[in-house]
Parts: sequence; C-alpha cells; structure tokens
Amino acid sequence: MHKIYFDYAATTPADPQVIKAMEPYFFERFGNASSPHSLGQEAMAALENAREILACFIGAKPQEIIFNSGATEANNHAVFGVAHAQKHKGDHIIVSTVEHHSVLEPAKALEAQGFRISYLMVDEFGLINPQDVKEAITDKTILIATIHASNEIGTIQPIADIGKIAKAHQIPFLVDSVQAIGHIPVNVDELHADLLSISAHKFYGPKGIGALYVRDGIRISPYLWGGDQEKGRRASTQNVAGAVGLAKAVELCQANMERESKQQIKWRDRLLQEVPRRVEGVKINGHPTKRLPNNAHFSFEQAQGESLLMSLDMVNIAASMGSACTSGAMEPSHVLRAIGLSDEMAYGALRISLGRWNKEADIEHFLEQLPQLVQSLRV
Amino acid sequence: MHKIYFDYAATTPADPQVIKAMEPYFFERFGNASSPHSLGQEAMAALENAREILACFIGAKPQEIIFNSGATEANNHAVFGVAHAQKHKGDHIIVSTVEHHSVLEPAKALEAQGFRISYLMVDEFGLINPQDVKEAITDKTILIATIHASNEIGTIQPIADIGKIAKAHQIPFLVDSVQAIGHIPVNVDELHADLLSISAHKFYGPKGIGALYVRDGIRISPYLWGGDQEKGRRASTQNVAGAVGLAKAVELCQANMERESKQQIKWRDRLLQEVPRRVEGVKINGHPTKRLPNNAHFSFEQAQGESLLMSLDMVNIAASMGSACTSGAMEPSHVLRAIGLSDEMAYGALRISLGRWNKEADIEHFLEQLPQLVQSLRV
Repeated sequence: MHKIYFDYAATTPADPQVIKAMEPYFFERFGNASSPHSLGQEAMAALENAREILACFIGAKPQEIIFNSGATEANNHAVFGVAHAQKHKGDHIIVSTVEHHSVLEPAKALEAQGFRISYLMVDEFGLINPQDVKEAITDKTILIATIHASNEIGTIQPIADIGKIAKAHQIPFLVDSVQAIGHIPVNVDELHADLLSISAHKFYGPKGIGALYVRDGIRISPYLWGGDQEKGRRASTQNVAGAVGLAKAVELCQANMERESKQQIKWRDRLLQEVPRRVEGVKINGHPTKRLPNNAHFSFEQAQGESLLMSLDMVNIAASMGSACTSGAMEPSHVLRAIGLSDEMAYGALRISLGRWNKEADIEHFLEQLPQLVQSLRV
Repeated sequence: MHKIYFDYAATTPADPQVIKAMEPYFFERFGNASSPHSLGQEAMAALENAREILACFIGAKPQEIIFNSGATEANNHAVFGVAHAQKHKGDHIIVSTVEHHSVLEPAKALEAQGFRISYLMVDEFGLINPQDVKEAITDKTILIATIHASNEIGTIQPIADIGKIAKAHQIPFLVDSVQAIGHIPVNVDELHADLLSISAHKFYGPKGIGALYVRDGIRISPYLWGGDQEKGRRASTQNVAGAVGLAKAVELCQANMERESKQQIKWRDRLLQEVPRRVEGVKINGHPTKRLPNNAHFSFEQAQGESLLMSLDMVNIAASMGSACTSGAMEPSHVLRAIGLSDEMAYGALRISLGRWNKEADIEHFLEQLPQLVQSLRV
C-alpha cells in the first residue's frame, strides 16, 4: 500500500496473518465440511473451531453462529427470516432511519408485502432515542432493528438501552454490528441482542465471509435452501478458508483492539479538532464522543464531496463520502438527511475512517493537504 | 494430499495457480470495488476482468454474469427470482425429480406459496425425456429447470433439446451446470440456457464464490438487497479475490479440460468395467456413455455405503455415497429412488469422482482394495 488509506469503513485489507491462516484450507485441507471422510471432518473441525472463536468473542454459544457470505446476507436473512417465521405473531417492524440499506431495503420489500414499518427518527448527532422505540412498539411488533454504529457518521447507538426495551416486550432485536465488531467491544448479552450481523472484511478478514448471530430460541426462516449446513439455516458448501480467516481476524482484534482504538481515538480527535481550524465552512457530522474510534465525518460548504475525493485521490489519499455500497448513487445520503443536513452539506461530505496500517504521518499529511484542496474546489 | 481423493464432485482443492492469482487481492489490492478512489477502481477492474473471462468461457456477455456466493445461492436466486419477477405471467414451474436440493427446496417452498410444480420423471439411467418437458408445459409455465449433469450419478441431460423446447415456448430455462462447468464444454447459446448456475469450488477454484448467468432480457428479482453491486441484482461488497480465483480456475480448465477429460474417461471406464468384474452383486448407476468424464457410481448389494466409505477412509481413500450436502441425512437419495433403486441398493451407493491430482496408481490401488473391503462388510 503506497497510498494513505482512510477508507477502512468501506473495506480493510486482510491482515497478513489472516491470509497465512487461510492458506492451508485452499489446497492441503480443502475438504468439504459436509463430507463424512476424514478430509471432510478435518474441514469441519476447522470450521467449528472458527465458530467457537467468533462465538466467544461476542459472548455467544457456537450453535448461535450462522456463517454466511457477509453483512448484506446477514441483514437480509435477519429481516426477511424473522418476518417470515413470525408473521403469525404480527406484521409490524421497527427500524431506524439511519440503518444500512441492507436492512432498509428488505424492510421496504416487506412493506410492499403488507407489513407495517415504523421508521425511527434520529437527533442531530444521528442518535436514536430509546423512548421512541418504546413508543413505537405495538402488540403486533415482531422485530426491532437498529444499527450499532453508523457506517457513515460513526455514531454509536444506545444499543443496550434499546435492547432492554425489546427484551421487556419479548420482541426479537437485530443489531447491525458490522462497523462495530473488532473496533469496539460487542457482547450479545450486554447489548440484549437477539440477532447480530457481522462481516469479516470490516475488521481485517477476507471479503465474502460473515456471520449472523441468532440467539437460541429465536425463530428464523433459512435464507439459502437446499442442504443441511449450518444446522439447516444456511444451505451451501461452507467457506472453510473464509471462516478460518474470519476467526484469525477476531483473534487479532482481541489482541489489538484496545491499543488500536486508543491510538485511533487520538488521531480521530485531532482530525475533528484540526479540520475546522484549518478549513472554513466545515461541519462535523456525528456525535462528539459517542462515535467509532476510527471515524471522522465532515461536511464542507461549497465543495462537492465527489470532487474532493478525486482531489485527495490525486495526492494518493483514499477516503469516501460515506457508504461505498451507494457510491454512484445520485441521491444524497439518507443518513445525512436524517440528521437534518441540507443537500449542499450532504453532497459536501467527507468520511475519514482509520485502521491498522495508518501512521501519525498520514494524519499530518492529510491535514497539510486538505485546506488547499478544498480551497481549489471553491474557487 | 497424502490421501487418494475420489470426491472431486463434493469439492476440489483450489489449484495452486488459483491461490497465487488471488493472493494480491487480499492485501495489496484489497479495495472495495464500489469505492470511487483508485484503489477501488483497481479492484473493480480486476472484478470486471474476471467477469469477462467467465462470460467468454460459457459464450455469454459480461453483463449477463452475476457473481455470488456459490451454487446454492445461484439456484435459489434463479428459482425464487424468476418466480417472483414473473408471477404475473403464470404460476407453473417444471423441474425434474433429479435436481439438486438447492432447486427442489425452493420449488417446494413456492409450491407452499401456491405455485404449481411439475416434477419430471427420469428413466433408469436418470435421463429426462425432452418430450415430457414439452407435454408438461402449460400457458402458465414461467420456468423450466433441469440439472446439466447429475451430482450423484453423473448422467448428462439432453440440455440442448430441452432448451429448444423452452425457447420455442419462450419460457425461461434454468440449467444447473455446477457439476458440468470445467469438466465438459458449456455454451449458453448451444444449450439455449437463459439462466445457468456456477460454483468455483467444483472446478479448482475457491469456496464461497460462484455465479449466476442471466440472459439479457430475462426478468429476475434480486436475491440480496441493499446496494447497487452487480447492476443492482446482488447487493454485497464483491468478493474480488474470489472472483479472480474463479477466473483463474476457468483459464486452467480452458487449457486442460480436453486432456484431463480424456484421461478421466479412460480411468472412469476402467472403474465401470473392473468393479463389477472384481465384486459380485454390484450395479452401475447412471448412463453408460452420457455421463461426466470423472464420475463412476455403483450400488452394492448387502453392503452399507456409509460403512464402505469408512472402510475406504481407513485405507486413505476419500469417496462418497452421493451428495455431500445431504450426508448425514437418513433418507435414501432422491436421485437413486428416481432411477428406481430399492432402498437396499440406494443405501449401498458409492460415488467415485475423479480430478486433477489423481494418478493411474490411485485407480489400481482402489481396484485392489475394494473387493476385500466389500467382502468384509458382507460377512
């Protein structure tokens, strides 16, 4: 990486130790985990070991982990799967307006099928008010879904408070922890989460592998059909190398998260402090303290975010406006609209997301470059 | 691999050249293909190059390829996706009784929703009669799905003949080519396929990556929701390393398929000839000639397949009864039932599937070991 990479929220490189852990499972130990012969059983043992490592990391039981292809599948599976399995109980779902599209679009698809969806507003920092969740609950509510930490503005939601309310009403609670896992502590019992979405490539694991945590006793339909894998909840030959890579990424986060997040908070806070000092007409988006250690998010007046990104790219700095999943979309971000930004400020967005291979010098170089780049766009 | 591996139909090792091709995309070129910066665009270029290689291999256009997590997702997406997108046209679907469960289970799920499913019978070799397809068609038929080559008994279906009928009636035609790709020539135009399912780990690519071919103009709903990836037909951060590995596996098959299949046919036919000579009370399953180059399938009287597999495993030979996806299932194989086998013969099944790293000596060693292993089970 010759570049300064400030887009860790979009995707992270797989840690070299992750790649090394995966390697034997491509060729030497390549068995199908469903095969009864010893090569298959060896693969199954590696898969179950990976499952235990992930389960332990989030305070879950191994059988509560469904390995899958990533966060989108996890969120889709959770929303559609709970809705279909529990529609006899009710037809009402509560989501926030700042969810990832992989929660919002399934919710909208269900709305078209006749489900009723309550969309929770957020405050200027992007925070959900747990009291609003409580008030939205009806006797037909079968799912509450909230994002743990915003993939755009980094705001960390009061998940445990929302979870307590869900638990008191015995309503399944989905937490989209995709941006949180590996960056801040995540424990399913402390959060009162019943379902929780995980993607390996957001915490130095490979792409194409993730997991859905489903608490014992929560009824959910399968999302992929046609085999007994993952206890019948997700058919498909298991991606053993991917699961082993995810587990190694978990172990590395367990070892490094505290140190890394301290470092990143220092850099993040320097960015949040210095950018408005050095550039006029800038707004910090997200909460001042309840935010991911690695996220800084700004809006610039009179500067198109897309143009700023291109200017940064020209000086070898990779950043983003917000979600990579919707880059290319012409609409301004739904999250920035939800926190009340004007179109101008939403289009002037810049997300800096830090990670394992950043250095102090990257921060300083960016701070030196930024004022003139913004200025040149404003001329 | 110290073992003799005869279970290539369950999964193949990723070719060392495939692993080498993937490696740069884990760390050095790890970008999110949806990111607009140059690291993202580098990833996108690799993804699109992989798409072109796969498209070219099956005679398709690049935009007709949807990369996904594998065959189960491809088959599920095709069946559910066409059914949902075209239900205004009709509610009737035709499948064969020898499909993979990843086609049959979605069909059954749709049946529970009110769709009508015609299940085509097969002959003693497992062959579908194209005339039966023609007769099953109604003015409400919206999908015909047939497996290209059986994952259990290796029978190759008269796909082009069925495709012609589907085309004449303008009914979308799904071909599950998971066992065929990389082993026999596959061309979507020659087969008249409108949808075609592909899994990399069945032809020396990695697990967790596959593709669905969808002919231009065929209407299909997305299967994963929440992002614009794969032209809005499959949300989720793309698994670039996986796609690059799939494409390298394609290139290796292009270079080696003719030579490898000739060699495998020779070994396969020796197995089909010698096993009944050396062991009494054995039946060959599948078609004598219309079968995959690498598949030999037998049923043994008075010998439990599971026990035989364990005996083979003890002498370091890895084989299977049929589908790994249903190993552990107590029911006899639906494919073996469909070709008219008794329960005894279905439970006495042995599938030998050959591949890239087999040697002449493996075949001979197996032929030497088999008689005494079967005999010891019959005592």
